Amino acid sequence: MTHKGFTLWLTGMSGAGKSTIAEQLMAGFHAEQAKVELLDGDIVRTNLSQGLGFSREDRDTNVRRIGFVCEILSRNGVIAVVAAISPYRATRDEVKAKIENFVEVYVECPVDVLASRDVKGLYKKALAGDMANFTGISDPYEPPENPDVVIHSDTETLSESVDRIWRELERRELITRATDLPA
Amino acid sequence: MTHKGFTLWLTGMSGAGKSTIAEQLMAGFHAEQAKVELLDGDIVRTNLSQGLGFSREDRDTNVRRIGFVCEILSRNGVIAVVAAISPYRATRDEVKAKIENFVEVYVECPVDVLASRDVKGLYKKALAGDMANFTGISDPYEPPENPDVVIHSDTETLSESVDRIWRELERRELITRATDLPA
Repeated sequence: MTHKGFTLWLTGMSGAGKSTIAEQLMAGFHAEQAKVELLDGDIVRTNLSQGLGFSREDRDTNVRRIGFVCEILSRNGVIAVVAAISPYRATRDEVKAKIENFVEVYVECPVDVLASRDVKGLYKKALAGDMANFTGISDPYEPPENPDVVIHSDTETLSESVDRIWRELERRELITRATDLPA
Repeated sequence: MTHKGFTLWLTGMSGAGKSTIAEQLMAGFHAEQAKVELLDGDIVRTNLSQGLGFSREDRDTNVRRIGFVCEILSRNGVIAVVAAISPYRATRDEVKAKIENFVEVYVECPVDVLASRDVKGLYKKALAGDMANFTGISDPYEPPENPDVVIHSDTETLSESVDRIWRELERRELITRATDLPA
């Protein structure tokens, strides 16, 4: 596989499947010896945004910092994969405008499905009114208006989702593979 | 020129010449179409560390964030050039330990020379006791113990300084040039 530098940005609510998809993509990129970095919530909170909270201002600062790192990676031929709630449309669009090759993936999942999965027990708390600033419940989530890929993580398999993202990257000639996709 | 990914870290007091040297190096790298990013004080304060102050803790956080970005650039084949006071030895060493190819350049200049130049008028204020947390006067600067290159910006020309850095990069095979250095 050859590839250009680009940013693949996964946005969506907590528990929708961003990190799972990102890790699956990373495995594929690593198998192809691509130059690639994952910027997910934990990595970013530890290394770039320690001390920031969940106000709109702090969330925006966090997203802009991730965007800055993506920008300098992408323009030097490196793939940046982001898994971050990044709830505000205007801030995502601001980052998008700065990065030449930017692929926005909306990982969509209905709130009732998220609340029934509730892997971390957070939706229950938020729905009970015990969690301020919880995206999608007590804080806004603004879906992208024109995402490049929409993933419906409640109705499609992980491999279907990942496969659609690969195809979008190929279609835009951000990656070029010598052989066809495995069936 | 071919190059590996590496981090070239310029440390030294305010006004010692870190940014001037870094810009000269950047011009050289750009002329060779290298993959390279400059992380100097202004760029970093704007994009990664807005809101941090000048306490030891905040300075360390700033240096660690720069280090994180250098690490992911370097390991993907990109050159990261840093011009940052980075006054604390332990924190620089912590960053150095994480980065495979790390070149530490100490830009040295005696305080009395810095105070006599005083481009920004800061030394006068600091020496008069009107500036807290001013590195080298009211705040510590801990010189590197084993820097890879020491620049004496009071006694050597800019092109001599830059030339010595190029030679160190060549000696360590971080860059390889087809032709000899210009005289």
